[in-house]
Amino acid sequence: MLFHQARARRIMAEQRIDALVATSPDNVTYATGYWAMSHWARPGGPQVYAVIPVDGGGSACVITGSGNLDLVVDGEAWVTETYRYGFFSTRTDGPDLPALERSYAALLSAPDHGDAAGALVAALRDRKLERGRLAVEETAIQPAVLERVRAELPGAQIVPGARVFREIRTLKTPEEIERLRGAVRVTERGIAAALRVAAPGVAERALLAEFDRAVLAEGGVPVSSMCIGSGPRSAYSNCQAGDRRLAAGEVIRFDGGVRFRWYRSDIARIAALGDPGDKATRYYAALRAGAERAIEAIRPGVKTAEIFRVAMDTVRREGIPHYERGHVGHGIGINNYDAPDLAPASAEVLEEGMVLCVETPYYELGWAGLQLENTVVVRAHGAEPLVSLDNGLCVV
Amino acid sequence: MLFHQARARRIMAEQRIDALVATSPDNVTYATGYWAMSHWARPGGPQVYAVIPVDGGGSACVITGSGNLDLVVDGEAWVTETYRYGFFSTRTDGPDLPALERSYAALLSAPDHGDAAGALVAALRDRKLERGRLAVEETAIQPAVLERVRAELPGAQIVPGARVFREIRTLKTPEEIERLRGAVRVTERGIAAALRVAAPGVAERALLAEFDRAVLAEGGVPVSSMCIGSGPRSAYSNCQAGDRRLAAGEVIRFDGGVRFRWYRSDIARIAALGDPGDKATRYYAALRAGAERAIEAIRPGVKTAEIFRVAMDTVRREGIPHYERGHVGHGIGINNYDAPDLAPASAEVLEEGMVLCVETPYYELGWAGLQLENTVVVRAHGAEPLVSLDNGLCVV
Repeated sequence: MLFHQARARRIMAEQRIDALVATSPDNVTYATGYWAMSHWARPGGPQVYAVIPVDGGGSACVITGSGNLDLVVDGEAWVTETYRYGFFSTRTDGPDLPALERSYAALLSAPDHGDAAGALVAALRDRKLERGRLAVEETAIQPAVLERVRAELPGAQIVPGARVFREIRTLKTPEEIERLRGAVRVTERGIAAALRVAAPGVAERALLAEFDRAVLAEGGVPVSSMCIGSGPRSAYSNCQAGDRRLAAGEVIRFDGGVRFRWYRSDIARIAALGDPGDKATRYYAALRAGAERAIEAIRPGVKTAEIFRVAMDTVRREGIPHYERGHVGHGIGINNYDAPDLAPASAEVLEEGMVLCVETPYYELGWAGLQLENTVVVRAHGAEPLVSLDNGLCVV
Repeated sequence: MLFHQARARRIMAEQRIDALVATSPDNVTYATGYWAMSHWARPGGPQVYAVIPVDGGGSACVITGSGNLDLVVDGEAWVTETYRYGFFSTRTDGPDLPALERSYAALLSAPDHGDAAGALVAALRDRKLERGRLAVEETAIQPAVLERVRAELPGAQIVPGARVFREIRTLKTPEEIERLRGAVRVTERGIAAALRVAAPGVAERALLAEFDRAVLAEGGVPVSSMCIGSGPRSAYSNCQAGDRRLAAGEVIRFDGGVRFRWYRSDIARIAALGDPGDKATRYYAALRAGAERAIEAIRPGVKTAEIFRVAMDTVRREGIPHYERGHVGHGIGINNYDAPDLAPASAEVLEEGMVLCVETPYYELGWAGLQLENTVVVRAHGAEPLVSLDNGLCVV
């Protein structure tokens, strides 16, 4: 299961939360396994929610449009109790329907709650949450729906839920780690495929095409978040592969990832077309040392601010004295910026089961961008690497 | 340009709006051409806005995190005035920077407004909008940011903006139509590629892989919104290609599309592995007639409810007397459910420049799903088709 039940239970108890209400695509899928295509494809559009009551507070359920009910039975959802809303016509009176079709027909024949607010209120009432403390993810529910819930359940105490979900998601379940491992693997193969066509005169765009092709072939989804920039363009932090042609002696910066079974990757590597020169070699060595020392410092109980300090001190000492960064990494999961932040002002402490992207990027306009980014699982003994690519500057 | 300036001007005048504030990825890109990767990749996360004052009310501008500024200069944005927030380190003091790098460096050296709310408030104040009527797209701005704006600009009147953007986007500019045409073309080629491997014994998943491969090769982005279902699975409205193997005499239903230069497609076709039998042939003929008569009825001035009536009456008369639907289509653009809805209760009237998906799907559990969906531009004389695939049931 993706949802970390034990952690959710503890956080809900600590914060006296009677139910979680997920409203974003990420958190609905995380909490229930239910993936509603239109919810993912049109953020801000179709309203889909999940209600997760505290233990003993009733069953978890999904609130969704009637046209999305097929994906409750024909998918990977482990929460299959639904409240539906809206008209949707599917003929269900055929003879001898198979079991899956019978389940789907049963969902379609349940009462129509009219609209998303009506269905959500019904789900909350059925769980006797009229006076409950509800952590409602406030960032994806339509404001008008939230107003209706407040009006119809005036005794309920509604608190911001996005940060509660973020807190729960901080520690990963084994299933999540497997998906993250898969996302990394697919991304590595994409980078390797792109590098097989890298040569002077080849356009950046051709590398991205190879990356995307390999990602698809490996079961990943390219989601327009792999940055590929060559030469001076590598200094643009979000560089999108374009028509620029590679030249000998230049670096190519890869940063980003894919989606794999809804989970994300974010890794970075530098390649060079032949010798990239003394400065790039020295600077890259410093950045690499910073990222490697930071990962060596990872273990449960260490402050994230300490990981930041180790990375920064190392890079500055090893060759880039003017190095500056706002953070040296972040958690990753179904969202590609999960907690914790590896940042100087962060008060967070590493725990077993976190999955971290550790990165030391450096951008210098008119020259180049250099970066190493790896992904690790925080284990009892230290960091378990998910990336198998070599940390060195890859000369092609 | 994607943004329909003339239509925006008219709607803002009618509704006495002093400025539009876009907050969703779709509408920021629509209004400015600015595509901020992390804004698109992580809905609900990074805050990016666009402020579009009424004519004479000052310049349009973008509010974005400092780490996203490269995409203002290195992309397709036509609005390049920015308000930045947050720390981001890029070395900009190199000698003889090229023009693009100098532009980027200038953006990086502008004042840091601290956070998204601070930057948005500064942009509004600079445009003397403290007492203005602001249409703020309420569905993607973080609630805490909107609270800060209300607190710091107590004289501003904030009205819901999502429906205003939707209204503006209803009529497409020539540039939008070209992108929609491209999205359709890419999707058609994907379906054709998938059908080239369709044969008894082949898994649905193999068809999707061919679809995705062809889409990428044609410059599109497969965004997990093409449904492919075979045999009885075609009756699941959102059917995701799975391990089921095709068999002779079965139908395959394709429904959905891709993203192409941020614009969407949504088309549907039915293929059959040999003769699908009398019922499927008759039913498909009725659905096809409904979709074709509906498109023939399209011209400026016709009510969308009338298009719905034509489609429904035709399908029922031509062979499916029990046919029921909530709608027979919708607009499409940068969002794949733009206005108008082709629905019975809709009061909308067709106008030149709308782009419509017209569809007559039919789902019967335990048997099959059948569907024809085309995309057309509403022109002065009638509907201009964007799809070139044959409307017939494709026997492979």
